[in-house]
Amino acid sequence: MPKQIYLDNAATTAVLPAVVEAMLPYFTELYGNPSSLYSIGVDAKAAITDARVRIAAHLNADESEIYFTGSGTEADNWALKATMEAYQGKGRHLITTAIEHHAISHTAEWLEKNGFAVTYLPVDSDGLVDPADLLSAIRDDTTLVSVILANNEIGTIQPIAELAAIAHEHGVLFHTDAVQALAHIPIDVEASGIDMLSASAHKFHGPKGVGLLYIKKGIKTRSFLHGGAQERKRRASTENVPGIIGMATALDLCMARLDKRANEALLLRDRLIDRVLDEVPYSRLNGHRQLRLPNNANFSFEFVEGESLLLSLEQKGILASSGSACASGTLDPSHVLLAIGLPHEIAHGSLRLTVGEATSIEDIDYTVESIKSVVSQLRSMSPLYEDFLQGKKPISAIR
Amino acid sequence: MPKQIYLDNAATTAVLPAVVEAMLPYFTELYGNPSSLYSIGVDAKAAITDARVRIAAHLNADESEIYFTGSGTEADNWALKATMEAYQGKGRHLITTAIEHHAISHTAEWLEKNGFAVTYLPVDSDGLVDPADLLSAIRDDTTLVSVILANNEIGTIQPIAELAAIAHEHGVLFHTDAVQALAHIPIDVEASGIDMLSASAHKFHGPKGVGLLYIKKGIKTRSFLHGGAQERKRRASTENVPGIIGMATALDLCMARLDKRANEALLLRDRLIDRVLDEVPYSRLNGHRQLRLPNNANFSFEFVEGESLLLSLEQKGILASSGSACASGTLDPSHVLLAIGLPHEIAHGSLRLTVGEATSIEDIDYTVESIKSVVSQLRSMSPLYEDFLQGKKPISAIR
Repeated sequence: MPKQIYLDNAATTAVLPAVVEAMLPYFTELYGNPSSLYSIGVDAKAAITDARVRIAAHLNADESEIYFTGSGTEADNWALKATMEAYQGKGRHLITTAIEHHAISHTAEWLEKNGFAVTYLPVDSDGLVDPADLLSAIRDDTTLVSVILANNEIGTIQPIAELAAIAHEHGVLFHTDAVQALAHIPIDVEASGIDMLSASAHKFHGPKGVGLLYIKKGIKTRSFLHGGAQERKRRASTENVPGIIGMATALDLCMARLDKRANEALLLRDRLIDRVLDEVPYSRLNGHRQLRLPNNANFSFEFVEGESLLLSLEQKGILASSGSACASGTLDPSHVLLAIGLPHEIAHGSLRLTVGEATSIEDIDYTVESIKSVVSQLRSMSPLYEDFLQGKKPISAIR
Repeated sequence: MPKQIYLDNAATTAVLPAVVEAMLPYFTELYGNPSSLYSIGVDAKAAITDARVRIAAHLNADESEIYFTGSGTEADNWALKATMEAYQGKGRHLITTAIEHHAISHTAEWLEKNGFAVTYLPVDSDGLVDPADLLSAIRDDTTLVSVILANNEIGTIQPIAELAAIAHEHGVLFHTDAVQALAHIPIDVEASGIDMLSASAHKFHGPKGVGLLYIKKGIKTRSFLHGGAQERKRRASTENVPGIIGMATALDLCMARLDKRANEALLLRDRLIDRVLDEVPYSRLNGHRQLRLPNNANFSFEFVEGESLLLSLEQKGILASSGSACASGTLDPSHVLLAIGLPHEIAHGSLRLTVGEATSIEDIDYTVESIKSVVSQLRSMSPLYEDFLQGKKPISAIR
């Protein structure tokens, strides 16, 4: 079995050993319920308050604006459902985009079934939202705009500050799903005018099962999980103390090296993109060439089926994904790739490679060589490619 | 500082070292996203399937009926909101009780604000629901009954099978919040006719931040968290793999010693109850004397304020709680104690002591002696007690 090269850091990341170390005491020793009034409860409460302060600082937020959740998905569901509920007196119209993670898009569909109106903004061929489209979509009854900060499949980074400013000019709140962005690019909720922001620890070397929702002071979002008086009475459930400590520790570690990590990732990513586009014919980069996450590359290869490509790469030790991990197992084409204008047959199979700190230049070069040989081999077995070579079928519009 | 005696196992429990050991590999090595198709993803998926099979066996359920959540609170919110939504074509009436955990009662209140009708069944002075009350509360538009299996404050265990049978005779679904019960008393969803059941790992020496909802096959409950296709497309969010493994391991360990643990707890609990009632004048046991959780004792002491009692006991190293941990920090009297008929001034302060495997007979005896001295001391400072002794004020109706 060849050495494994993990190029799916957008799906999830390994928890850093230092993060596990920081969590451990809270399982067996400082196990108190943070709502309890005695020492081990008070200590647990103090630890999560400290975690909140540290996380808030990385976002330029106040600690009172950070609410812990069980996942990025829960944060997204909370932001959309409870905000639309809270402000329904003003209006019942939500604006989002065609390229959101399913945690937003499926929640928006649920809202549509429950008496709310939703507008899905289109994106251009790079996956960018046009601020003019947002402007013209805003209605008198619009209460909330939700735009993914950096797309989970193609990595495109949206002009969040500009979009938030347009929303605010019309008295509309602005939420962003920053699950892929936090700890990868700088985020300043104040400077960007973000009213609410979702994030998830396991995307930046923290544990699975813990996320957060930033809610700017004064926003009247209601509760989504009803029950106990935790999280300033806004999010019930006994706090996941080890998970929260783990998330804060992971974010501290990632943010301390943010520039260094981003620069290293950029070098690797650009080498990967440049070499693949140069050396693999009929290949295409999905997403914006510059305005993209530093660790993300997403390719389409004409005449190659995505699942076969993935399996062949795995045999060479390369772990990657086709679109988003959350949508795997479904047979639908990627809604993101459709939204940027790819035809159905191409949107079914793309290759997402997301580098991490463990990735080396050698890994990248090995990956490029592997892609070249696998794509070539798969094409040699493709009747469509045969037809194309013989001039019987035109190439599709992927480049 | 005296040795600490932890008598708040209903608030939360220490994670067992063997549980932490079982979780560890899934943080740093087998960290794959279970939705990914390559080895470390497939391995993670296999591990959670194995956990599901093991947990299902302890409930006499099928593995396809176990859905992992981020907490017992999320399971409760899911069961109520999404079931009422799914069956609203049949009717919009929910029946629950006056002594539910806030995860149920506050969710029921949310439903009331959103166009659903809720009936809250009363309980008798022991905290028991009368099946005849359920029968007469069922209407043509009733779709769901939710009754807490064992109360989190007073420990009373309800006649779940009888209540479920009445619901089913009228075509009504039956949910139970078993957060305090699972791993403490035997539960057989099949024999008891339970359609849905909520549980939480941290109440039985598993980690915080993970719970489950059992949903019987055929029940059309919708999703509560919308997003990815996890948990048979019913509960979105990347699976909390270490948490799920931890929950299954903790349940295995607890269920393997269920009888032994319960018998040991019973001995300690009964010694505690008998000695306190015998040796502390004007004391009362809240909850049913026999039909109660083996580890739960809940007392009221006339002329003693609950918070003062707790603080004085903590100074003696005894960690306990006044009512439920989730409601601490609020100034409301316990809705459970009000429901069993205690007057407001008594419902404000009760003492819940919940024993665990680490509790010894010596701990119990020390606790009894401590309660005796603290209650006596607090009463000596109470003008109400002074009035009572001088015959100026009658004793309230607590015994």
